[in-house]
Amino acid sequence: MHYVELVALLALLQFLIFIVLVGRARGRYGIKAPATSGHEIFDRYFRVQQNTQENLLMFLPALWIAAAYWNPLWVAAVGAIYLVGRVWYCVGYVRDPRSRAMGYLLTAIPIVVLLLAALYGVVRTMI
Amino acid sequence: MHYVELVALLALLQFLIFIVLVGRARGRYGIKAPATSGHEIFDRYFRVQQNTQENLLMFLPALWIAAAYWNPLWVAAVGAIYLVGRVWYCVGYVRDPRSRAMGYLLTAIPIVVLLLAALYGVVRTMI
Amino acid sequence: MHYVELVALLALLQFLIFIVLVGRARGRYGIKAPATSGHEIFDRYFRVQQNTQENLLMFLPALWIAAAYWNPLWVAAVGAIYLVGRVWYCVGYVRDPRSRAMGYLLTAIPIVVLLLAALYGVVRTMI
Repeated sequence: MHYVELVALLALLQFLIFIVLVGRARGRYGIKAPATSGHEIFDRYFRVQQNTQENLLMFLPALWIAAAYWNPLWVAAVGAIYLVGRVWYCVGYVRDPRSRAMGYLLTAIPIVVLLLAALYGVVRTMI
Repeated sequence: MHYVELVALLALLQFLIFIVLVGRARGRYGIKAPATSGHEIFDRYFRVQQNTQENLLMFLPALWIAAAYWNPLWVAAVGAIYLVGRVWYCVGYVRDPRSRAMGYLLTAIPIVVLLLAALYGVVRTMI
Repeated sequence: MHYVELVALLALLQFLIFIVLVGRARGRYGIKAPATSGHEIFDRYFRVQQNTQENLLMFLPALWIAAAYWNPLWVAAVGAIYLVGRVWYCVGYVRDPRSRAMGYLLTAIPIVVLLLAALYGVVRTMI
């Protein structure tokens, strides 16, 4: 389970870094709180953070339950793809929102895989 | 605990479907990222997803801790009401934001019940 | 672990209260759903809730994993600072967004401490 916990913590750390990037963009482009919009590049950083937030909310519980039914090493490996995909997504989105598809898929697919693996594990055990 | 895990996973799957609905509305009404507003119907789907996100964040941990102190079958049953309430909320909100109250209550009440049940369980055990 | 669960549940309850405050501000300043902006004070309550949401998403898993590697009583104590910091943050932000720094730090620091403590615990055990 240590590998699964490590992946979960790195996903949290990654999200924290995205939050710091939004804060930095807030300063750089002069977007004063409580505004959350006003400059194209700030908006991109903000959307990366928002999108990561909704992904993380699915990722962590799916990772956790999947690890209770499957080899934690494999579960952690699928989680590691998510981590790489999120970096790709952030870099791609900030450069050009239209180029975010690849990074997006690299995080959406691991989440769906973990979710379905966990569902299959639970349902198989219940039957 | 399998029933509780099943409810948790279905809640994640439901949230994933709401995200897909937002993506579809984005395409249908021509809302280009990073914009998150611009068409009344898109805004409704977006709010459904945002509201589900904040509910899910309370629902999952409350479900989890409640299941450690109470009969998991009852806890899962309360969680199932949440799942039904969210469908009701989504359908009602998209049709007319003023008709979202019933679906909203059907998710808010299970969350409050789980939260108070968990709190009561923890405090009773500590004393 | 009871103290850690208690802190987690109180953080959920606190978030629920922030959501209720947003709903009340929605009524008071006449911001009709699906709008999420339109009055300076409403915007502040909304940002407090949004910011708490992203903090809570990091706080709960970090609290949980840290408690598996360190004395749960100390972990719960660090979590209690987060709870106080959030109240401070909410009061400060609503009064004047520029005075939110102190409350913000009182929640950001406990999250970072829990995250690093959990990471250190996991990595040390793996080696």
